[in-house]
Amino acid sequence: MSSPAIKPFEVNGRRYAPPARPVAVICLDGSADEYLNAALTRGRMPNLTKLAVHGHRTMARGALPSFTNVNNASIITGVAPSVHGISGNFFLDPATGAEVMMNSSRYLRAETIAAAAARAGRRVAMVTAKEKLRDILSHGLDGIAFSSEKANQAEEQTHGISNVEKLVGQRTPPIYSAEASLFVLQAGVALIKREAADFVYLSLTDYIQHLHAPEATEALAFYAAIDELLGQLVGLGAVVGATADHGMNAKQMLSGDPNVIYLETFLHKEFGNGVRVILPITDPYVVHHGALGSFAVIHLSDFKMLGPIKERLIEFEEITEVYDRKTAARKLELPPDRIGDLVVMSKRDVVIGRTPEHHDLSALRGGLRSHGGRYEEMVPLIISEPLNAEYVAKAASDPRNFDIFDFVTNGIQS
Amino acid sequence: MSSPAIKPFEVNGRRYAPPARPVAVICLDGSADEYLNAALTRGRMPNLTKLAVHGHRTMARGALPSFTNVNNASIITGVAPSVHGISGNFFLDPATGAEVMMNSSRYLRAETIAAAAARAGRRVAMVTAKEKLRDILSHGLDGIAFSSEKANQAEEQTHGISNVEKLVGQRTPPIYSAEASLFVLQAGVALIKREAADFVYLSLTDYIQHLHAPEATEALAFYAAIDELLGQLVGLGAVVGATADHGMNAKQMLSGDPNVIYLETFLHKEFGNGVRVILPITDPYVVHHGALGSFAVIHLSDFKMLGPIKERLIEFEEITEVYDRKTAARKLELPPDRIGDLVVMSKRDVVIGRTPEHHDLSALRGGLRSHGGRYEEMVPLIISEPLNAEYVAKAASDPRNFDIFDFVTNGIQS
Repeated sequence: MSSPAIKPFEVNGRRYAPPARPVAVICLDGSADEYLNAALTRGRMPNLTKLAVHGHRTMARGALPSFTNVNNASIITGVAPSVHGISGNFFLDPATGAEVMMNSSRYLRAETIAAAAARAGRRVAMVTAKEKLRDILSHGLDGIAFSSEKANQAEEQTHGISNVEKLVGQRTPPIYSAEASLFVLQAGVALIKREAADFVYLSLTDYIQHLHAPEATEALAFYAAIDELLGQLVGLGAVVGATADHGMNAKQMLSGDPNVIYLETFLHKEFGNGVRVILPITDPYVVHHGALGSFAVIHLSDFKMLGPIKERLIEFEEITEVYDRKTAARKLELPPDRIGDLVVMSKRDVVIGRTPEHHDLSALRGGLRSHGGRYEEMVPLIISEPLNAEYVAKAASDPRNFDIFDFVTNGIQS
Repeated sequence: MSSPAIKPFEVNGRRYAPPARPVAVICLDGSADEYLNAALTRGRMPNLTKLAVHGHRTMARGALPSFTNVNNASIITGVAPSVHGISGNFFLDPATGAEVMMNSSRYLRAETIAAAAARAGRRVAMVTAKEKLRDILSHGLDGIAFSSEKANQAEEQTHGISNVEKLVGQRTPPIYSAEASLFVLQAGVALIKREAADFVYLSLTDYIQHLHAPEATEALAFYAAIDELLGQLVGLGAVVGATADHGMNAKQMLSGDPNVIYLETFLHKEFGNGVRVILPITDPYVVHHGALGSFAVIHLSDFKMLGPIKERLIEFEEITEVYDRKTAARKLELPPDRIGDLVVMSKRDVVIGRTPEHHDLSALRGGLRSHGGRYEEMVPLIISEPLNAEYVAKAASDPRNFDIFDFVTNGIQS
């Protein structure tokens, strides 16, 4: 294989100058730093230990709401949700008044770094765990794109690759498994090893983190397996950058029951039925969180209610922040037309529900761990190689998780 | 020596049932979790590694503003600032209109856990690095209380101990040194070893963290020295709990210059001179931060300005949160009579100044690292022994740094 193109490219106002070596960016879905620390102190992540010391490890600020689609869209475009337009998994479409999934690239308002890299001559591959992400993130990409969830359905014409199971040497895993994520990393290793790709984005799923605390046996085994694959990527000569889309916190009472405030129930009772609560965490993967997260938007039929509802909600001990549309768009970097008239976030251990009927709590095995709010905003940022002076300073300022492609392409010393 | 009293005691609405063994609580001033991680991954904290695995390590939410006095007062009373009354180092006294230091126990509105433990028969010692903390925290304490800053001035009658240098085997260190903190831990070890105390609070200073990033040689050496002393405390049979008062972030531009917004300058220009900005971080230790932190309060001569100023400030990209007095008191758990008409917090890498004339930036050696805002709120929480089931659940909910005495007394298994 000829040496990969090293032509710099520009996308969404930022220039990326990747090294000739393979570049791999990993989104460790739901990886609160506590998960890494629990595994690191137990000696289960020897490769990450080496990377953190030889390269760079710090904390980065994610995009809000601290959800998967929002942050994956930010990582792959390098910009905030106010620019790329993905504000959740689910929203109330102002054009139709319908509540719809945002699982389509037609909602994406910015070009992706992956598509731009491919145009600049890189062999690009994108592997996600969840199929829902593939369509959004692979928009306009001339390269390989498939999910581990539907790996056995990838075809040359539609996915840029076929026979993925053979390539990876694994069967297509069930989405509710550790293997759904490990398959993504194994695919990354195989693609780079076979020289089928030299610029890859690997996005895992947070099934394990929704179910298990950092020090649980299952979580430790998961991170040990991730570490082994991180080592393989570095061993292949790749520059590796890893970050997360969001953190993860237990959202339950000391009894173990979910700690939920049913916002629509409360608002209907106090302010009448002209209030609609939308939970942008809503997605088809209900076992993860039962559509319960620490972020909600509220749509009003009558704007006169805005002030009184805002005043009332900020009084709740469980609620941390309440913003009107304009302020939310500005302070949380959100697209104003894709949020509600009010935006609400809840405490570290509290989730916001709509009404009890809207949520099937029986789907939650072993307690509720979730995300979406301010306390899942900070995530790890790891670069496998030493940073140059400019990016040491950048890493020490207010780096974002969606700067990760910037760090691995522009920030390394060699 | 007879076995220490194991009588449970109650203070500020919470019951504490300490074990008969010595109990040591440490406030690792300014210890953002990144400091521990940088040292841990480099193998510089073998004792902490053991404690984290054998005992419990998680993240806890501190009190806001994320300042030293506020959080030390919370830790030693077990309650939020709204209850204990210490809202900063410095405030505008509504009784006099004067700007004064809050460095006196007369501002403390709650009893301390230390005083209550002594009354229940424990031999209590409190050692702080900064003398400013000693008076506040040792209020009503029948026991030992001194600072490393003035260790050589401790007298039996006023401090419950004399000849501290001899006890510790070290000279009184300069306050601007790593030794100012290490002396505190060495004193704790000596007091427990000599059976002079069995219930100790050890509060360090953040001189090193204000000056050095987590991976700096000086920071690593500091944490290695802390680790050695942690090991000695555990070796003496003590139950050890460690947390921090606040985190620490670089607050500078990529050029290395401090990233300051001069709030009073701006407000005088736009809204006239009836606006006074108070920076509650202000204290005599100017080398640390030049009175620049990520938290400010605003006093208004005319309340008609409140709405327009609030609206204007939330537009600033550098400002994250703006609250009126009532909302700040509720959402940030602050005493309403000891804050301003408005309360303002700034971004992770931004500090709030008053006017350029108010700050001597020349005192800042090697860049500005500071705290005070939302991004220094989360801190480590470490207990040296395994938690019982109730406190495992508590640690996984929304533990506070000021629950640390609760954890070490009520939360351990034996």
